[in-house]
Amino acid sequence: MADNLQLNDEGKLKHFLTIEGLDKSLLTEILDTAESFIGMSDQQVKKVPLLRGKTIVNLFFENSTRTRTTFELAAKRLSADVLSISIATSSTSKGESLLDTIRNLEAMFVDMFVVRHAISGAAHFIARHTAPHISVINAGDGQHAHPTQAMLDMFTIRQIKSDFSSLKVAVIGDILHSRVARSEILALNTLGAAEVRVIAPKTLLPAHVETLGVSVYHNLMEGLKDIDVIIMLRLQKERMTSALLPSESEYFKCFGLNEDKLKYAKPDAIVMHPGPINRGVEIDSKVADGPQSVILKQVSNGIATRMAIMAMAMQKPGMTS
Amino acid sequence: MADNLQLNDEGKLKHFLTIEGLDKSLLTEILDTAESFIGMSDQQVKKVPLLRGKTIVNLFFENSTRTRTTFELAAKRLSADVLSISIATSSTSKGESLLDTIRNLEAMFVDMFVVRHAISGAAHFIARHTAPHISVINAGDGQHAHPTQAMLDMFTIRQIKSDFSSLKVAVIGDILHSRVARSEILALNTLGAAEVRVIAPKTLLPAHVETLGVSVYHNLMEGLKDIDVIIMLRLQKERMTSALLPSESEYFKCFGLNEDKLKYAKPDAIVMHPGPINRGVEIDSKVADGPQSVILKQVSNGIATRMAIMAMAMQKPGMTS
Amino acid sequence: MADNLQLNDEGKLKHFLTIEGLDKSLLTEILDTAESFIGMSDQQVKKVPLLRGKTIVNLFFENSTRTRTTFELAAKRLSADVLSISIATSSTSKGESLLDTIRNLEAMFVDMFVVRHAISGAAHFIARHTAPHISVINAGDGQHAHPTQAMLDMFTIRQIKSDFSSLKVAVIGDILHSRVARSEILALNTLGAAEVRVIAPKTLLPAHVETLGVSVYHNLMEGLKDIDVIIMLRLQKERMTSALLPSESEYFKCFGLNEDKLKYAKPDAIVMHPGPINRGVEIDSKVADGPQSVILKQVSNGIATRMAIMAMAMQKPGMTS
Repeated sequence: MADNLQLNDEGKLKHFLTIEGLDKSLLTEILDTAESFIGMSDQQVKKVPLLRGKTIVNLFFENSTRTRTTFELAAKRLSADVLSISIATSSTSKGESLLDTIRNLEAMFVDMFVVRHAISGAAHFIARHTAPHISVINAGDGQHAHPTQAMLDMFTIRQIKSDFSSLKVAVIGDILHSRVARSEILALNTLGAAEVRVIAPKTLLPAHVETLGVSVYHNLMEGLKDIDVIIMLRLQKERMTSALLPSESEYFKCFGLNEDKLKYAKPDAIVMHPGPINRGVEIDSKVADGPQSVILKQVSNGIATRMAIMAMAMQKPGMTS
Repeated sequence: MADNLQLNDEGKLKHFLTIEGLDKSLLTEILDTAESFIGMSDQQVKKVPLLRGKTIVNLFFENSTRTRTTFELAAKRLSADVLSISIATSSTSKGESLLDTIRNLEAMFVDMFVVRHAISGAAHFIARHTAPHISVINAGDGQHAHPTQAMLDMFTIRQIKSDFSSLKVAVIGDILHSRVARSEILALNTLGAAEVRVIAPKTLLPAHVETLGVSVYHNLMEGLKDIDVIIMLRLQKERMTSALLPSESEYFKCFGLNEDKLKYAKPDAIVMHPGPINRGVEIDSKVADGPQSVILKQVSNGIATRMAIMAMAMQKPGMTS
Repeated sequence: MADNLQLNDEGKLKHFLTIEGLDKSLLTEILDTAESFIGMSDQQVKKVPLLRGKTIVNLFFENSTRTRTTFELAAKRLSADVLSISIATSSTSKGESLLDTIRNLEAMFVDMFVVRHAISGAAHFIARHTAPHISVINAGDGQHAHPTQAMLDMFTIRQIKSDFSSLKVAVIGDILHSRVARSEILALNTLGAAEVRVIAPKTLLPAHVETLGVSVYHNLMEGLKDIDVIIMLRLQKERMTSALLPSESEYFKCFGLNEDKLKYAKPDAIVMHPGPINRGVEIDSKVADGPQSVILKQVSNGIATRMAIMAMAMQKPGMTS
């Protein structure tokens, strides 16, 4: 296990870069630790001193107010000091100067990098080259992975559905370009979901997608049959212009989720979306705001899940330590 | 009283959106609470733990370093965690996506929104739609209201002049476009000022301005007679080009306050301005920096007053609780 | 001594604007205080409560993520509240409105300004005009001074070489435009370095540079003979186009430091650079990343040195007070 960049010699979480290579017990430990933080938000004082005196650097090479905000809140509720640095990718287009940035921040005795980067593998690269005492969290790299999003979704699923082994989950939309999709599928399979389906037009599926351990559907209504959990993906507007798709309304007609189509899934199916949602493009407002939607619960769980991952990577898991 | 969006069932402050609908005793409670914070700034440690563990979101859809800074300082001195989010109005031009932004932040367990928006009514809109445990403070909405500015000005007036009932107050300048003016006039009348005058050219006065409970003057020197408190307004440069005004120098000649014109007011009259001042446009530097100016005292009182409003809206008034 | 703007009536540090006018004992006190903070970064909790409740304003009229970050970290590790304000120089091109900015921040009961400005003398100007209880730290003003950089370099030199009186130091590169160079030379001479040399082409040396107490070399290899400490300067790319220099590669051939040229210095010479480095322009990567380089140690020491200067300027020196 020691050859996994993400684990230390004792097999404990050190970096959190991808779901790949992490086993069921570790993912379950993350979910359990997040569970211990979930009640906190109702308390008068929503802070624990677990990471007091630690410095966490939000290193965002790609703009994302939403993700930056949840990591910043999670860090502050762990009592860490947070430094948010936005870096235009242009000024660090050469790997060498990215390394110089990292070296300089390391020298300032920081403890963790939360990295968002448009290039796949950027967080791995930093983890591989950073000082041994520093942890790296991947907050989204290119089209590769967005593992904290996957874990908060696993947390949300477990919160409502309890047991993964009987669950049929459908991931719907632009699988091809989605770092979220890749991480979700890996996490669901690792946690032992009964079946994972992808539902998408052929142009938005990667070649050999079946090798990820999914069954493939091109028809939304067929794919939704017997489904317990629906994970919608955001449709990036720029894909429209790239000739991969005919038009927004055409896409919505075929793959957008509305109340009628939702009826094809199990009656107690839950609807998830990583946000921000495109109302009327991939999801109808009546579904997004409807009783089966857990989209805002995902946001709430995002704080506790990221607190758990940050605390574990700094070897201080749980509320009682 | 329960139909007032700003008050909870017990008639306590919940949101602070406008002076309208708040009675004299509530405004006085704000001033008294601010009083309890005023000594703090001289202490070695300028912090109280009143809002420790609370998360306050500065939600600025309109840029304002000065106002954002005072709210941020006030929040930090109450020991709250502060999240500052600047949002270009363009990206949230549709009400629906403004709501999505709010829903997402709510889901992150935040406790208060401090809202600045170019559209009148934006803070009310958010207060009406946000979760019940969240308080909303209006930090300026369009041409509608800027109630925290009005309250810090009331605090400054009371600090120097003690009793409102004998005071004659003149508000001078662009009444038409000023959210500050509207809030000041309401607050002065609620607190029982003897007389409130507006002094402005006709083009910078709203129709039926008298219905606000003011007497109207178009001549600065006449209007200043017997005045105890002078509230100058900032002249927005963009009004100049809109043909409402002849020229900056012409405006200064008629409505700008210099030492000579100041003599028409009472000898102990104080001069106020919400800032930032346009030296030589609406006010001469000799007056702005002179002995009757309390402009910087207003800035100082802004911290204590905003601390008071934030603490009260979270039902934790005063220094002793 | 009381006529020195930087010292209070008791001769203690009040502002830190330039090395000029500070004597050896004061500089040594800064180094000793920094020493007391240096172990801290290894502790679990990297914070001391020395400046708890104090408000430090980073007032950056010139963009510098790196310098702003180190000051922000230093302030947070002293438990101060930090407010970072970036101001485009354009909007405050008139001295008067710079003063209005300062007056307003003063009125908010802030305790310290850390000032970065493109105009030489800006920090002095603010120190001369600010309220008596406020301290000003110069974080770089035009081509004038960058005294905290000089002090962290002195700290690094003392850490490795112990005694200044036997040291020969070379400052290499664009002396003419470098605020770092001026501050380094002053500090080295005040601390009693045996010899300070500047090595540069004639076009990058100020007139009468000898009057600063340096010996002048135009040949890198000659100048490096017997040198203990090498301080490289960053070559600003914009100088290239200004016809002061032939080309980057030509400059590197004559004044760039590579492994071969480094051999002309003493075998245990250390190589310093204020960063960010231009690899292949003024310094070769093999030297920058080599065993004699202390460039990253400088960054680390920057935190402790800035903590020392901030704590001393607020009259709370050392770890035990």
